[in-house]
Amino acid sequence: MSNRKSAGKIRAVLIGGSGYAGFEAIRWLLRHPGVELVGIYGPPNELGPMEKFYPLLSGQVTLSQELFDADKVAAVGADVALLCVPHVIAMNYVPALRKKGLRVIDWSADYRLRDADEYKKWYAHEHTDTGNLAEAVYGLPEYFADEIRTAKLIANPGCYPTCSALGLAPLLAAGLIEPAGIVVNAISGVSGAGRTPKLANHYPERNESFEPYGVGNHRHMPEIEQTLAAIIGQPVELLFQPHLCPMDRGMLCSIYARPTAAGAGKSAEELTQVFQDAYAKAPFVRVRTDVLPATKYVAYTNFCDVAVRVAKGRVIVFTALDNLIKGASGQAIQNMNLMFGFDETAGLI
Amino acid sequence: MSNRKSAGKIRAVLIGGSGYAGFEAIRWLLRHPGVELVGIYGPPNELGPMEKFYPLLSGQVTLSQELFDADKVAAVGADVALLCVPHVIAMNYVPALRKKGLRVIDWSADYRLRDADEYKKWYAHEHTDTGNLAEAVYGLPEYFADEIRTAKLIANPGCYPTCSALGLAPLLAAGLIEPAGIVVNAISGVSGAGRTPKLANHYPERNESFEPYGVGNHRHMPEIEQTLAAIIGQPVELLFQPHLCPMDRGMLCSIYARPTAAGAGKSAEELTQVFQDAYAKAPFVRVRTDVLPATKYVAYTNFCDVAVRVAKGRVIVFTALDNLIKGASGQAIQNMNLMFGFDETAGLI
Amino acid sequence: MSNRKSAGKIRAVLIGGSGYAGFEAIRWLLRHPGVELVGIYGPPNELGPMEKFYPLLSGQVTLSQELFDADKVAAVGADVALLCVPHVIAMNYVPALRKKGLRVIDWSADYRLRDADEYKKWYAHEHTDTGNLAEAVYGLPEYFADEIRTAKLIANPGCYPTCSALGLAPLLAAGLIEPAGIVVNAISGVSGAGRTPKLANHYPERNESFEPYGVGNHRHMPEIEQTLAAIIGQPVELLFQPHLCPMDRGMLCSIYARPTAAGAGKSAEELTQVFQDAYAKAPFVRVRTDVLPATKYVAYTNFCDVAVRVAKGRVIVFTALDNLIKGASGQAIQNMNLMFGFDETAGLI
Amino acid sequence: MSNRKSAGKIRAVLIGGSGYAGFEAIRWLLRHPGVELVGIYGPPNELGPMEKFYPLLSGQVTLSQELFDADKVAAVGADVALLCVPHVIAMNYVPALRKKGLRVIDWSADYRLRDADEYKKWYAHEHTDTGNLAEAVYGLPEYFADEIRTAKLIANPGCYPTCSALGLAPLLAAGLIEPAGIVVNAISGVSGAGRTPKLANHYPERNESFEPYGVGNHRHMPEIEQTLAAIIGQPVELLFQPHLCPMDRGMLCSIYARPTAAGAGKSAEELTQVFQDAYAKAPFVRVRTDVLPATKYVAYTNFCDVAVRVAKGRVIVFTALDNLIKGASGQAIQNMNLMFGFDETAGLI
Repeated sequence: MSNRKSAGKIRAVLIGGSGYAGFEAIRWLLRHPGVELVGIYGPPNELGPMEKFYPLLSGQVTLSQELFDADKVAAVGADVALLCVPHVIAMNYVPALRKKGLRVIDWSADYRLRDADEYKKWYAHEHTDTGNLAEAVYGLPEYFADEIRTAKLIANPGCYPTCSALGLAPLLAAGLIEPAGIVVNAISGVSGAGRTPKLANHYPERNESFEPYGVGNHRHMPEIEQTLAAIIGQPVELLFQPHLCPMDRGMLCSIYARPTAAGAGKSAEELTQVFQDAYAKAPFVRVRTDVLPATKYVAYTNFCDVAVRVAKGRVIVFTALDNLIKGASGQAIQNMNLMFGFDETAGLI
Repeated sequence: MSNRKSAGKIRAVLIGGSGYAGFEAIRWLLRHPGVELVGIYGPPNELGPMEKFYPLLSGQVTLSQELFDADKVAAVGADVALLCVPHVIAMNYVPALRKKGLRVIDWSADYRLRDADEYKKWYAHEHTDTGNLAEAVYGLPEYFADEIRTAKLIANPGCYPTCSALGLAPLLAAGLIEPAGIVVNAISGVSGAGRTPKLANHYPERNESFEPYGVGNHRHMPEIEQTLAAIIGQPVELLFQPHLCPMDRGMLCSIYARPTAAGAGKSAEELTQVFQDAYAKAPFVRVRTDVLPATKYVAYTNFCDVAVRVAKGRVIVFTALDNLIKGASGQAIQNMNLMFGFDETAGLI
Repeated sequence: MSNRKSAGKIRAVLIGGSGYAGFEAIRWLLRHPGVELVGIYGPPNELGPMEKFYPLLSGQVTLSQELFDADKVAAVGADVALLCVPHVIAMNYVPALRKKGLRVIDWSADYRLRDADEYKKWYAHEHTDTGNLAEAVYGLPEYFADEIRTAKLIANPGCYPTCSALGLAPLLAAGLIEPAGIVVNAISGVSGAGRTPKLANHYPERNESFEPYGVGNHRHMPEIEQTLAAIIGQPVELLFQPHLCPMDRGMLCSIYARPTAAGAGKSAEELTQVFQDAYAKAPFVRVRTDVLPATKYVAYTNFCDVAVRVAKGRVIVFTALDNLIKGASGQAIQNMNLMFGFDETAGLI
Repeated sequence: MSNRKSAGKIRAVLIGGSGYAGFEAIRWLLRHPGVELVGIYGPPNELGPMEKFYPLLSGQVTLSQELFDADKVAAVGADVALLCVPHVIAMNYVPALRKKGLRVIDWSADYRLRDADEYKKWYAHEHTDTGNLAEAVYGLPEYFADEIRTAKLIANPGCYPTCSALGLAPLLAAGLIEPAGIVVNAISGVSGAGRTPKLANHYPERNESFEPYGVGNHRHMPEIEQTLAAIIGQPVELLFQPHLCPMDRGMLCSIYARPTAAGAGKSAEELTQVFQDAYAKAPFVRVRTDVLPATKYVAYTNFCDVAVRVAKGRVIVFTALDNLIKGASGQAIQNMNLMFGFDETAGLI
């Protein structure tokens, strides 16, 4: 992976390569047959060869993370900017990138919530780029592939929203479960909490420790509700409760819902069929009938596994994915594949 | 810990010392000021020095696990039998032990469900000791201490039932949450699955893998419902969903309930007060206001931590304990302390 | 990855797909641009769809593991057989495969030790295929690439021998360390111990437990000595001591050697240069000067990282690799690349 | 554990309760029959209830960590100060504590190296309390029990030195291995690296990562050499190489030595007998003949397990202990037991 122009490949730049999502993006782009990574950019305090941040990348990536500058980025002739920076920073960069003509896939939360007031409420910051916000497409390929193909700006979904929405959308869309009173009990591996060291995730504190957090106030809750509402065309109300699990990566949602009148009495097999129909053409959603989802079965892949069961009058859905891949960078590449006309699975197996 | 008679100490025998609960019982009995362990007994294929099963016990326990025989057990003059054997086997042993006059604390499920038909339904086996079943006391000290003190036979609660019931009973008893439609989303460390090797818990399979199991059919579900119904005097209906978490030990329940009319509008602080009142005299339940429960905070202790929150119109309770201690052997010793007039915390700090 | 013939691709069969090395081979072959996997074969008790053994493979591999039969294997027109079966079984299969004209890459130990008597001594079994043994090439690409290119039968090296030999060969070849009295202190992740459940690797026993094993009698010790002797043309004597480390994968060797007269006084920098020269053309050996090797830096890659230091008159070399990749299946594919004229790194980034 | 005076108990203060060693000291003191913890003191930025630092301690310890002040400490009438603070700070506190008449057990390195010049060389700081340094006793109970009993100031040994010295001293003292050219390959759980968060020990970085560190310059190397030299009365030269292992706690040394003429030809059984004789009266050293040492067998105990083997003309010793207990706080309490005439094992089973 070098700076030379490869015939027939699109050119991508990565902005924010030193976090876990950036790292994962690099690893997958290395294998992508149609993309050349031509630049990596970051903040002043995080510059230098990528192997400095990730010794694993030594010998694979010769690019250094350089200071971000929109003009410089434009000068390398990139077709797409992969933007792996924190929220607020993202909306500071997007306008310039868009003006330079780059299509942008943004990992941050800045363009996910459609309503600037909602954004302000949950992120405690005024939205300063409502123009692009209005044009952003939510990058959940299983539901918005058509819009994604032509999008200029993708809001790449959060890990929890992807994992939750893929487990709920088919049943909600089919009118088989109530769109209110849903509980999403979610767990994530620790890489989901980012790369900045803190006591709670210091190895001797986190190892052998499972715990809930963000009760009633996790920012992914409104994103999940908004996504599902967009899919079914009516409001969805749910309680989202995340937990931190002592493992590197992986995410699993255990979702509890009540059947509607139409859904009452449906067997697990019938509900499974609903999922199979919904995801018949989705290459990265596997509706499991052989096993229940487990994080090990999706780790280091772009798959989201789903299974549905019925017990005590309730519908229970389990979904699992790798929080850094289908929950972040793999999904971004899946979006990129759609945007640039590659096979949806290109570089993702 | 030897065979010699210690003045003023009660004499205990352990039946089934080679499983994790037996191991944990031994470790805590070593520190108990009022108990002498005078014999360990097991099945024909699991005999020999305890250090053979647990090299950690070398130099601490000189007793060997000998072949179980009720006459032999009686001959050592034991006051109490701690019965750590699987269900069905337990009810084969209890009648003889009781006839010999020993008080029995049984870790198995054989005397937990009050109704022999329920037992048969969930354990697929006829109950063959309904006489003792009728006299058994459910050993949850926070709610049944009076009965425990005089009991001849204790059904030591399951780990999940302890963790679930302690989180629900105060709110149900106060009429603040609906006794139906409750969801208990539980996770357990792998030691809860026992010591017998199998592929699912082979280290390279289980490490980094979190997964649900027992959907709608876990045997602890009816035990939780029965326990709560006994406490509040009316039926309780809940959905219990367990998961396996890649860690040695620890259990955490995330419990979702709907407030009753009386509970609606109560703040987390008000509900916390209900817990504080309920457990004011319970030495091993800690109602947390400083942190949310986490398995690390209770690991290797007999504490159960509880916290309550309110979000989106629902009541959420988190409880955590060490599945082998408050969820098994520590609780058994707590019961023994009550039965023999020791301080409830003797040997358990 | 299907059964249809792809133009320009070689055709490979995998024999023994249900172990960890087989699994890893499949994952990498899925990404290989020049190879089509056309059949998977195994023993009678391990047949069926690959996703049955590895739910992760669902949706990626449609092949089932079928009963091994040399005629059947020959009928699919394979160019190469990847043989991931235990020792002794391997040498039962190889003669038939070779007769059918397939080139064979054997993961087992059956063709590693050159001397049939040594084999019998260490593996407690008569060697029954000494004819092919004489023709087998030891598949360490960094040292035997020329022989590998034309080999009909490759003895794919053990994980520990790869990790040890790559750390010692350059210094021995340069005459800078004594070829006797070397200590190789090695650690491996638990996947190296295979997929069969046993108490020692049951999660609650292995988690948080680090321990030595195989003192003075590990079968990789003579393989390491033989390999190094073959490289430098004189006997090498070393003590190899393996340990099991509570992690999935990864291997790290800490190697202690005494400098020769020629090596005495050489600095770490000078010795590093020796490694850099030795591996200048080896795409999968990274001589680290920035960090010491760590298993995380090579996990899920085909790299072997090496660093050398001098302290208290001794030379210390650290090497790290992923035991299932550079220590097994990645190396096999690297060998296959050489054998079939692919770029050495094809499918391995 | 309260402030009231308990008849017949000695009074202890803990200085530095917020680090892992302080935490572990508190947990064990809670169980000690002869000691009352009457105060906990720390630096200005680490004050408050102990449960703030360790939620696990809630309900067990009512003491708060108060600002350290020698007068205040003296005023509580303590018999002994347990000093769990970093080096340099320790030697700032010791003179005042000693002047107030307290006996001191110091966990830091400040009084371990006998020679102030050596101290300066390894710790890059002038020794400012050479008076007390001259009187300090090295607290390795297995070898210096007599001096410990009457000591006013104990230098509590480092974890690695304890683990290394207990494995080497008997063979060196018996003249069976050469006192030079020894290699100690050691691994430690991550709690040994302290409680301050840093990237290297951030959970997603450390999990699944095993790595060497401190090549040739770890400060425990001279401490090990000094200790062994003091025991055998002649210089000892060894190479100590530590590694970090992805687990909470536990330490294991794999020690490689050459037999002397007297040791040549000795069997593992004969060498085992040497250890058994050496540790016949040491309650916390277990010479294993049944299993090789493993960290799980000593975790959460004050035991050090030892086993010896002979292979390829070399003597190999394995030792294991819990780095926070026998490697730190358990050993300190063992020293305290000797100093105050308690049974050596009091409070430590």
